[in-house]
Parts: sequence; C-alpha cells; structure tokens
Amino acid sequence: MEGRQKDIKALGEFGLIELLTRNIELKNKSSLCGVGDDAAIVDFGGKKVVLTTDMLTEGVHFNLVYTPLRHLGYKAVVVNLSDVYAMNARPQQVLVSIAISAKFTAEMLEELYEGIKMACDFYKADLVGGDTTSSYSGLVISITATGIADEKNIARRSGAAENDLICVSGDLGAAYMGLQVLERETKIFTETNGPQPDLSAYGYILERQLKPEARHDIIEKLEEKGIVPTSMIDISDGLSSELLHLTRKSGTGCRIYTERIPIADETRAAMEEMGLEPLTIALNGGEDYELLFTVPLEKHALIKEIGGISIIGNMTDRSEGCYMVSTGGSAVELHAMGWDGLKKD
Amino acid sequence: MEGRQKDIKALGEFGLIELLTRNIELKNKSSLCGVGDDAAIVDFGGKKVVLTTDMLTEGVHFNLVYTPLRHLGYKAVVVNLSDVYAMNARPQQVLVSIAISAKFTAEMLEELYEGIKMACDFYKADLVGGDTTSSYSGLVISITATGIADEKNIARRSGAAENDLICVSGDLGAAYMGLQVLERETKIFTETNGPQPDLSAYGYILERQLKPEARHDIIEKLEEKGIVPTSMIDISDGLSSELLHLTRKSGTGCRIYTERIPIADETRAAMEEMGLEPLTIALNGGEDYELLFTVPLEKHALIKEIGGISIIGNMTDRSEGCYMVSTGGSAVELHAMGWDGLKKD
Repeated sequence: MEGRQKDIKALGEFGLIELLTRNIELKNKSSLCGVGDDAAIVDFGGKKVVLTTDMLTEGVHFNLVYTPLRHLGYKAVVVNLSDVYAMNARPQQVLVSIAISAKFTAEMLEELYEGIKMACDFYKADLVGGDTTSSYSGLVISITATGIADEKNIARRSGAAENDLICVSGDLGAAYMGLQVLERETKIFTETNGPQPDLSAYGYILERQLKPEARHDIIEKLEEKGIVPTSMIDISDGLSSELLHLTRKSGTGCRIYTERIPIADETRAAMEEMGLEPLTIALNGGEDYELLFTVPLEKHALIKEIGGISIIGNMTDRSEGCYMVSTGGSAVELHAMGWDGLKKD
Repeated sequence: MEGRQKDIKALGEFGLIELLTRNIELKNKSSLCGVGDDAAIVDFGGKKVVLTTDMLTEGVHFNLVYTPLRHLGYKAVVVNLSDVYAMNARPQQVLVSIAISAKFTAEMLEELYEGIKMACDFYKADLVGGDTTSSYSGLVISITATGIADEKNIARRSGAAENDLICVSGDLGAAYMGLQVLERETKIFTETNGPQPDLSAYGYILERQLKPEARHDIIEKLEEKGIVPTSMIDISDGLSSELLHLTRKSGTGCRIYTERIPIADETRAAMEEMGLEPLTIALNGGEDYELLFTVPLEKHALIKEIGGISIIGNMTDRSEGCYMVSTGGSAVELHAMGWDGLKKD
C-alpha cells in the first residue's frame, strides 16, 4: 500500500488530473472547451457559458478552530467566482453542495449559508441549487459556478504571445502569511491554554486569508479600457505555478523581475517576523486569488492608468525558457513549487 | 451539543434545505428557476439549460467493501443525469470533483474514472472539468451536470392538474433490496471470515443497487409519442416522498392503488426471504432512479403503447388529500418516510 501511495504524491495534482482525464473526446456541439483552463466553456446557443467547480474539505482547506463559518461560506463562493473572472466572464449561477458530520447544527449551517449568500449578493450570482448530505468526517463544501461572456472577450490560458506584458493584480503572499499567523497562534493557544491572542497587528493578512475577494474590479476596469487579456489565470496555487501554466498553454517562455513582484508592507513585516523569505512566499504562497494575465505591449500605458496592477515582466519565445531576473541581473529558472509543496515539505 | 444536533434530524433534509435557502431572490435574467426542482433552469440566450449537482460520501452513500470503484463512478454520474432526464432535458456536460484520503492510489482513481467516463459515453455527456483534492477521511464525489431542452418541453414538478394520470417507469424497491443483501452478506463474511458469498441468485437487485441506469429510454419514447409530462421527478428517495413533492408543487391531491405499484419478482422474492413488507419498501426504498410523472388523462392509450410504464393512479383536487387505496378498497393517507427514515429507524 505504502509503495502505491507514493504514486499520487509523485504525480502531483496536475499529473493526476492529466492521468485521469486523458483521452477525453468532447461529443456535444455545446462543449467548446473542457478540462485544462480555469473553467470549461460551453455554448448553448446564446452567450458563451463558463463552468467551474471547486471542493473544500475540513482539515485540508480550512480549520474550523479559527475559521468563522460565515467567512468560510463567503470564501467557498469567492474561490469559484475567481475562476469565472479569470475567464473574463461574469458570474451568473452558483450551486452549493455540502456534506456534514453529526457535530454540525442547523445554526452552524445557517451561518455558513449566510456567508454563501453574502458572496452571491456581492458578486451578483444566483444560488440556484445544490445538495445537502451527511459525511462521517467533518465538512465538505463543493461549489459549481457559471458565468457568461461574449466569445470575443473570453480570456483563456493559451493566447499569450512573445513580448506580451505579464501583469498581476494587487499583491502576493498575504493569504499565506495570514495562514501562518493563524496556525502559530492556534498552536500557542492550544498548548498554553492562555488568553485569546491579540491579532490586531495582522489585520490585512488575516483578511486576505479569511475573507479573500475575487478581483471583479480589475475585470471591470480592463473592460472600461477595452482590454481583453491575451491570457489569464487566477493565482490560487502561487505565482510561479500559474505563470508556468500560462507559458505552457500559450507555447511561450517568460522573463519576470524580482523587484517588480508586489508584496504589501504588512505581508513583508510578517515575513520578517517569522523569518520567511519574501520572494519564496510571493512566488509560491497560495490563495491570493489575484489575477495573472498578459496583454499586448502597446497596452502598457492603459494598464498603468488602471492602477493596482504590476507589470512584472514579459513573455518570450519558448526557446528562451522561463526565468526570473534578480535585482543584480542574474537569472534563475522558474520552478513551480506551489502551495502544496510549500505546505508539506 | 446533543440537544442541538436533533435540530437537523428533526428538520430532515428537505426542512434543512428550506431553512438554508429561504429568502433567495434570483438576480440574473439568466436564472429562470432556482432551488426546488430536480435541477435549476437557466437561460443563456439559446436553448434552456438545466443544472443539477449531487454529492456522494464514503460510508454514507457507498461502502467500498462491496462497491467496485468502476461501478461507483458510473453510478455517481447516473444519479445526476437522472435529475437531468427528470426535467425532460438531455445531458450535455459533467463536472467531477473528488476528495481522496491517503488510502487511495492512482490505479484506484483510474478505475473510478473509467466508470465515470463509461457513463459519460453511454449517456453522451462530456466530462469538461472538476477538481481533485484531498480529504482526511475517505472518498467524496461531487458531480454537477448540465442538460438542454426547449422551453416547451421542460417538465417541472409543478405542472400536474386534477385527473392527470400518475405514471412510474420500471419497478420499485429493487435497489433497496440489493443494498440489504450486500449489507447482510458483508456482515456474515466479516463475522465468520468464511468463503466469499455466492450472490448469483440476487443478480437483478444487485445490479439495480450497484449499477443503476437513468431512464433515458423512457424520455426518448415519450418524445416519440409527442408526450410532455405535466410534472416529473426521479425516484431517488422513494415513491411516497417523490409523489408528495409533485402534489405539493402542483397544488393537487392524489390517489394511487396498491396493486398497481410495480415490484419485480426477483425483488419480491428477496423481500419475502428477508421478511420485509413489499409495499413499505416499494413506497420508501431509495435509489430506484425510475421516473415518476404525470400526463393528461387522454394520453392513457399512448402511455400503454410505450410499455414498461405503470399507471398507478391519478391526481385529484388538493382538498381530497393524498391517499393510497388498497386491494380491499380501504384508503390510507400517504406519508413520506423516505429512504433515510427507513435506514435510520
């Protein structure tokens, strides 16, 4: 058993998905694009529709010791809508399935659903269905979201070209640092049975971990400027991993510059306090839910006008590989360690 | 804690769903119909689209001791497509999310996906996406399915009228009896550590439990005859429970006749062997995935021509209540014990 278990670890999530979904041939005219982007693309005769789904399991994706159920419900919707926006689509419907163990009360579920509904209201998505069932082991939340877009506006992962600017919204590493603080304080609290910790100094990074938002504002501003990204993905597993997805799907290389990678002051302070290397976390920390996208070189000025977007480098010819250039000028090859790698090693 | 847990048990699944989804107002033009039918109905500008989702958890919905993973994958898709057909729609896309614990190997997941893909191929649905993640406790499968239909063909739960004929496809109670046999034999096998049991006498009921099919054939035959059911639902929780859903949504009463409720000979034999009352199981046993629907009285002859459909009674005025008439002529009020009730009491 032990020997075969390594199987899945060695494959990694993406290897496993590739293994399980190989040889899938789309049969229906309405299925335009299947596995392999932030969402599937389907065509029912009107607008194009994107479909995406994400599952969160207790103990793996969230710890109920420090995660308020309202926030959890909100976040579970947001991580799905982030995928909808990453296709440059607009959210429409949400389906919510939950499995609960005996420890959950109706009040607890109402709290969870309050968060779910809050997110649906804020992002103008309709909760149209789902499933409620039991589990022998904690909470599982599975959400499916739909979105719509005109064909010409859909941003896939595969459209980037050489010289396109690589853009990232907001700042990186904050959600990961929020998680580190929560886990540290929980450990101290459990071991010492002391007073509840004062976390007020960590407001920003905790908010990024507990109540992330999907960057609808960036999508709207890009639309105002008439910009359709040539490729786009949301950053859930870390910048490196996501950027490598874009280059692989687009058939390009890339060059990014370390000093341009956005890290908030609050995040940097927590990194220093905990002795963590800012760049490693910004590149590989998960759950930022920022948007990583590419635009043609001539959009430089328009992107600057929007504000809140960092241009961190540019796409190159595939033969040039994927590199990160440090302040000193030396270039190191980009690797995707990813959030999972960071957590487990 | 114990006192509050009863909360959810007392509410029941439907009460809980009602509690959690009350006050939902649909905001998007594309959301035609939300919570409360077999599937949501959405309109993206072309054909109408139905969306449905179901979650299966290890230990609650399946026991891996006697459930081959290939069958489990197949069934997980079928239970969703059954909801698509119950709207009189045709399956289009499927999204599959799974959470797995450390005991699962890549080979096991490949087997599960073989079953998933087999069902997708058979029912002509495209597997277009999903999520693969880990859990601390066994397998969770969450599937979302889409289907399309012309507006005029959609069969909701709410369209039945007085005098409509109540029809049920195939036969009932078999899947429940298959489950009883599997659980009995597993118990004997575990306790005595004896030889693997010979289950050949139970072929039909085991097949109904382990590899159910969605009744696409009934949907196709109804279409050939030009019949659009006035209301329809798939029987996953037992005939009583589903019929009461139709009457409640349609604002009718009903009258069904015990001697017309279809039970297969193999199922009846197993019921006798195990000392279970056939009618109770046929009314309340779960997982039949047959279709329960109503048609106008004048379709009687056409329904008879199709074959494999039992006309078990008719809708009545709401004031007449919901009753089952026995062979002797006495009428008893219909109650929904449902599959869960049957299992836990």
